[in-house]
Amino acid sequence: MREVFQKELHEVQQRLQEMAGDATRIMDSASKAFIRSDVTLADQALASADLMASKALALDELVIRIMARQSPVARDLRILVSALRISASLERMAALAGHIAQIARFRFPGSAVPESLRATFVEMGALDVELGRKVELLLKDPNVDFAKLIQAEDQRVDELHRSVFDTVLSDDWKENAVFTVDVTLASRYHERFADHVVDISSKLSYLSTGEWNDTIS
Amino acid sequence: MREVFQKELHEVQQRLQEMAGDATRIMDSASKAFIRSDVTLADQALASADLMASKALALDELVIRIMARQSPVARDLRILVSALRISASLERMAALAGHIAQIARFRFPGSAVPESLRATFVEMGALDVELGRKVELLLKDPNVDFAKLIQAEDQRVDELHRSVFDTVLSDDWKENAVFTVDVTLASRYHERFADHVVDISSKLSYLSTGEWNDTIS
Repeated sequence: MREVFQKELHEVQQRLQEMAGDATRIMDSASKAFIRSDVTLADQALASADLMASKALALDELVIRIMARQSPVARDLRILVSALRISASLERMAALAGHIAQIARFRFPGSAVPESLRATFVEMGALDVELGRKVELLLKDPNVDFAKLIQAEDQRVDELHRSVFDTVLSDDWKENAVFTVDVTLASRYHERFADHVVDISSKLSYLSTGEWNDTIS
Repeated sequence: MREVFQKELHEVQQRLQEMAGDATRIMDSASKAFIRSDVTLADQALASADLMASKALALDELVIRIMARQSPVARDLRILVSALRISASLERMAALAGHIAQIARFRFPGSAVPESLRATFVEMGALDVELGRKVELLLKDPNVDFAKLIQAEDQRVDELHRSVFDTVLSDDWKENAVFTVDVTLASRYHERFADHVVDISSKLSYLSTGEWNDTIS
């Protein structure tokens, strides 16, 4: 029984890793599509983002089946509950990346990014992709000590998010309302993507430090 | 055992209802604060929104304890997994309402809503509050047939959300970037609040129609 359970847990872990890889690739395409007004990349991102809901649903069904068959308790149960939450976060990350691709698509052949904010969005996109990769690795090995790095990178994303508002709300901002709307939403989506990474990593670090172990009997 | 389990399920249901009531009240205050630039209401909304994370955590712990003790299967297990998801949605709804209150707070004593969009936001806020109330009632009695009403109201929120963009991106829009940013984000937050209501109601309708019953053995 225990061996079957471990095998099933491994399957869950692998599927979460795959979903993290997907979400990261979607953000990579979306971010590049957004910065370069590349409609092919935008379409790729949107097509992949559309597949994530069914992947998340399939994973959730697997987790529920394992729960029903194995009646896990303590740490095993928490791992499975965390898997449900992580799957929801990864699905949401893909959707957020999809929204960024959608903005690029709407403005094509024009650009959604004014020159004054290009460097900011290049950095934000690269950070989100980097955070996605770290989560993928964390899911492979929850003992890897990425927590501080992830926190620092998320703080940088927050800083960049605030700097977008500073730019847009400054007297120097002469762009029209289309640009204002696009960069406001795109910046928000980048920031939320990073927030989900932080959520996932804090769930994983709880599990690997065992801090949750004593809270249920 | 069964009797204890039913009592525990009832406790979960009651706590979810309470959280739905909280999220609705927070949205009510936030929406009014946003429209009327009422800083007292904004502060009330923010204070209540801050409490929701710990309520969600406490509920999640209760659900995990019940799972560990009762080893539920089939429909019972699905109800508990749904409770975890609904709790996450309700927490997020309160956070989104909090973001709306925050915008009102930032712009105080000025208004965050230009005259041309006042009626739109009054309607959006009222719809979100109405949707929150319906979810509260649905949680009390999952057999109530609100599904169609909720869908129609969510569609109206989506329509209003799009109309905000139409207004902001039209040639008649003469407001400055501060207004553009505020109404873009506020509209997005209202729309996401309604999305979560739709998510919750579809989870509840799955449970009450029993459509999920046959998927696990």
